Amino acid sequence: MKLLEDRILRDGRIYPGNILKVDSFLNHQIDVSLLNEAGREFYRLFDGTRITKLLTIEASGISVACIAAQYFNVPVLFAKKTHTKNIAGNVHTVSVESFTHGRTYDIYVSGEFLCADDSVLLIDDFLAKGNALMGLIRLVRSAGAEVAGAGIMIEKGFQGGGELVRAAGVRLESLAVIESMNEGRVQFKT
Amino acid sequence: MKLLEDRILRDGRIYPGNILKVDSFLNHQIDVSLLNEAGREFYRLFDGTRITKLLTIEASGISVACIAAQYFNVPVLFAKKTHTKNIAGNVHTVSVESFTHGRTYDIYVSGEFLCADDSVLLIDDFLAKGNALMGLIRLVRSAGAEVAGAGIMIEKGFQGGGELVRAAGVRLESLAVIESMNEGRVQFKT
Repeated sequence: MKLLEDRILRDGRIYPGNILKVDSFLNHQIDVSLLNEAGREFYRLFDGTRITKLLTIEASGISVACIAAQYFNVPVLFAKKTHTKNIAGNVHTVSVESFTHGRTYDIYVSGEFLCADDSVLLIDDFLAKGNALMGLIRLVRSAGAEVAGAGIMIEKGFQGGGELVRAAGVRLESLAVIESMNEGRVQFKT
Repeated sequence: MKLLEDRILRDGRIYPGNILKVDSFLNHQIDVSLLNEAGREFYRLFDGTRITKLLTIEASGISVACIAAQYFNVPVLFAKKTHTKNIAGNVHTVSVESFTHGRTYDIYVSGEFLCADDSVLLIDDFLAKGNALMGLIRLVRSAGAEVAGAGIMIEKGFQGGGELVRAAGVRLESLAVIESMNEGRVQFKT
């Protein structure tokens, strides 16, 4: 999506270690009009696919999923993160490794809201190594539900997450795919 | 807002200790059409007030703020929670006590996105004892910015948060105010 690429070029900032900060419009301060264009585009891309629910993970995916849900006209569900091992009751849960924080955490959703007849579109702001997204895929499948696809705002195409997701048989649509960030310049995949 | 009160009566569940669970439509699974009605109502209530930004706190306030921001046509900013004491750089930070989790955490926003000329509407899904909301008020004021008001989806009117917020000189608008939850029945303030 050209609008998003242009915004990354204008307002994104690159830090050592291939870190791209987009906190002025995506994951701290949020430009909701940009998210509206993204939601519209996700809807166009997944038109014709059966989708009963959008699933994301707290915290910064919630904004993207909620705005997109207005186009899909389905509920949003967000997986919660926990560091406690005792999650009681009727829940689906999987473990996710976080490279950023160097630790493992569990994510869960209530079994009430994710059922075998759901067809779930996964939504997130970022895809890098794919740990969070692969966690969501396992979560949906552990509930016996179907993964209808994954819609991502920004994919760092050189960090392997996209390959993992596609290898898991999931249709992946990323609105901006970064091919490299060498010498402080973002290059998009064309 | 009658729509919200009706939804609480229909889908809210009460647990011992005055716990109201609304995770089927507000803070786990999210009914975005309900949030749209709430956003429209916040906009009506604060019509004529100068508002440059909506501020909320991760995670479940993000959904409410993003949908509401479509009516106000301003950016959303969400305060992040951290348990590390070392927050570097240009940030505003305050400590918040959590009664639920029995510990203290820090919340922060970047100084880039909250400035002295901002007039900020605080948005959250819940108000009970008021710790999080009072933290946001201190955060805004520590940046030299103005608190334009606070818009809350559900206020538990018997837990004191509302009084604290009003005593701090902040205009508070809660779309549903629960007066009591005795014997498993929700009574709204009329």
